[in-house]
Amino acid sequence: MDIHTQRQHFPALANKIYLNFGGQGPLPTPALTAMMAAYEQGQIKGPFSRQALTWVEEQEHLTRQAFAQCLQVAVADITLTSSTTQGCAIVLWGWPWRGGEHLLLSDGEHPGVVATVAQLAQRFGLTWSTCPLSDPTVDPITVLEQHVQPHTRMLVLSHVLWHTGQVLPLTDIAAFCQQRDIRLLVDGAQSLGVLPLDLTGVDFYAATGHKWLCGPAGLGVLYIHSQYRDVIQPTHCGWRGLQGFRQQRPCWSDDGQRHEIATTAWELGAGLRASLALHDAWGTPVQRYERLVQLAQDLWQQLGDLPHLTRLLPEPPRCGLVSFRHASIPPETLAQQLEQRNILVRSVAAGNCVRASIHYLTDQDELTQLVRALRELQG
Amino acid sequence: MDIHTQRQHFPALANKIYLNFGGQGPLPTPALTAMMAAYEQGQIKGPFSRQALTWVEEQEHLTRQAFAQCLQVAVADITLTSSTTQGCAIVLWGWPWRGGEHLLLSDGEHPGVVATVAQLAQRFGLTWSTCPLSDPTVDPITVLEQHVQPHTRMLVLSHVLWHTGQVLPLTDIAAFCQQRDIRLLVDGAQSLGVLPLDLTGVDFYAATGHKWLCGPAGLGVLYIHSQYRDVIQPTHCGWRGLQGFRQQRPCWSDDGQRHEIATTAWELGAGLRASLALHDAWGTPVQRYERLVQLAQDLWQQLGDLPHLTRLLPEPPRCGLVSFRHASIPPETLAQQLEQRNILVRSVAAGNCVRASIHYLTDQDELTQLVRALRELQG
Repeated sequence: MDIHTQRQHFPALANKIYLNFGGQGPLPTPALTAMMAAYEQGQIKGPFSRQALTWVEEQEHLTRQAFAQCLQVAVADITLTSSTTQGCAIVLWGWPWRGGEHLLLSDGEHPGVVATVAQLAQRFGLTWSTCPLSDPTVDPITVLEQHVQPHTRMLVLSHVLWHTGQVLPLTDIAAFCQQRDIRLLVDGAQSLGVLPLDLTGVDFYAATGHKWLCGPAGLGVLYIHSQYRDVIQPTHCGWRGLQGFRQQRPCWSDDGQRHEIATTAWELGAGLRASLALHDAWGTPVQRYERLVQLAQDLWQQLGDLPHLTRLLPEPPRCGLVSFRHASIPPETLAQQLEQRNILVRSVAAGNCVRASIHYLTDQDELTQLVRALRELQG
Repeated sequence: MDIHTQRQHFPALANKIYLNFGGQGPLPTPALTAMMAAYEQGQIKGPFSRQALTWVEEQEHLTRQAFAQCLQVAVADITLTSSTTQGCAIVLWGWPWRGGEHLLLSDGEHPGVVATVAQLAQRFGLTWSTCPLSDPTVDPITVLEQHVQPHTRMLVLSHVLWHTGQVLPLTDIAAFCQQRDIRLLVDGAQSLGVLPLDLTGVDFYAATGHKWLCGPAGLGVLYIHSQYRDVIQPTHCGWRGLQGFRQQRPCWSDDGQRHEIATTAWELGAGLRASLALHDAWGTPVQRYERLVQLAQDLWQQLGDLPHLTRLLPEPPRCGLVSFRHASIPPETLAQQLEQRNILVRSVAAGNCVRASIHYLTDQDELTQLVRALRELQG
């Protein structure tokens, strides 16, 4: 299908050059229509009635199924969350820590996850440190070998590093962790909806629907390998995950729903599913990835011709993030100057860089305009 | 303003007799319109741009302000949550527990909160027990005096008990707790939007916008007394509450926002604020409460004339919940039979009862029809 026809479903793409998919994806009109219809149906059926509650349960199951399909895992291993960070928190706070254990993080983790780890370590007497996985010149497994400690119990890293756009070799890292009895928690905020996923060997994978999948904000997903279903204890929990009590002990749902809390805006799921249907109508995940990577690599190549810019990656990107630094304009200033020209990218302080997010929805002409603007902004 | 005019804003009230406000309130059309407008504006401005992010911050602040107004507290003490239960979890998991301490709960707490307490106790080596505050024939303070223990550190109770509709004397209980250095966590799920609130002496108050306030599901509120702002440690946390790091330690927002996690469906706040504006246009909180209580007491009186029914409260209710048992029809069956007649109430297993929720939006004629149906359903 022609990309221009597809783009017409996205009002946010009509009035600007939008290269912030890694921040938040644009919401297509069919998603908004589906959400509105869900709200209206909810009012007709209930909102609180036997009929409505059964229907909401079905809707939530459809949303779990949709996420399971995206992650290529069983629906029973899926928990609906409100964000990637919340998904990570469920695993981090739910793991049965013992004092003195250690968490190893990449040096490119999102502040929300780092803060959660810091709080957790403080509470349970754990230690944590980071390792330089964001150095693209070093083999990740070598880095890990140098930085794991005897008491390292969990490795926390992003599938795609949010500041540089590096794609970490998940399968190799998962095998490394399995050999050492280290659990692997993956932040998939910049990978879900970008890469076709293979979670073999991964213990926990948290992501969100509102970035590359172009769903509404406030709806994310957590995958917990079934081996750890009974290990991860619910912490922030509630009626949605609860089946009852036995001798003052909660009995949990026998699937990933056990970590879902209470009544939520389930209508968001109708929006996400409409977005997914729209993507699928355009092409398969592999087709979308191929287009996205080609565009991102093309941009990376063109930026190489601008002497006042430095690209963060030494090789063409394998995802949608293209990050760079300007020789004289600080990243936040550069992002502002681009926004004044109606080109939306973001600065990422952690990488001291500007980051452009390229989607399969991106138009070749938008990249041309970005490169032209960057050529003009020589500082 | 005429109640029939006001009811026309609520599509859910048009095609049924809706007496489930305590489960979920109906969403008025202006709220849905406001949410859709917020979604559309977000796409025009961003969704992810400097302009959009500033605007979203303003929107979230307006929502915190609206909740602060409802709770009659300072906006700096407000955290936006996704549900009442999540609000309780923030306090419960954030409190700096020491092994051996005790939590005291009323015997009428919601399963989600009970489950959270059970998990917490298991993790930190605490004990917990319940006390019979739902016995309407006993003075609550006497019950508490009999059940607090030397190591009781927190009392968890509902302002309005969700199965019986009892209103607990919050000010007296708060004073009792203060004298004994016991922290008071209140579940306000059945009180916010019902009673004019006075949180003097209350340490923590969690509630939701989607029940009596008729906001969208998925948006709740937590009040933390400023005295405990630095005591309650963020657990499930993220960028929204984070200002940065100092020597690997997170620095938190200096207000209640510190417990908010990540990007969320902030558009829900626009919906809630539209619902609140609609209520305010009809009457003050006191006027709404007076109408609601009069209707609820009227229903309670009429049910007293049906010999096959037993009311759970010995005195007229002081909130919107009217609970009763049928001499021969189990609660769930009775609720089903009423739903077949298009009258929506719910059964509450914890109270072995059927519960009708009466709102200021309730029409006198709806209560007449409920009573008529109950008279016919003699079992």
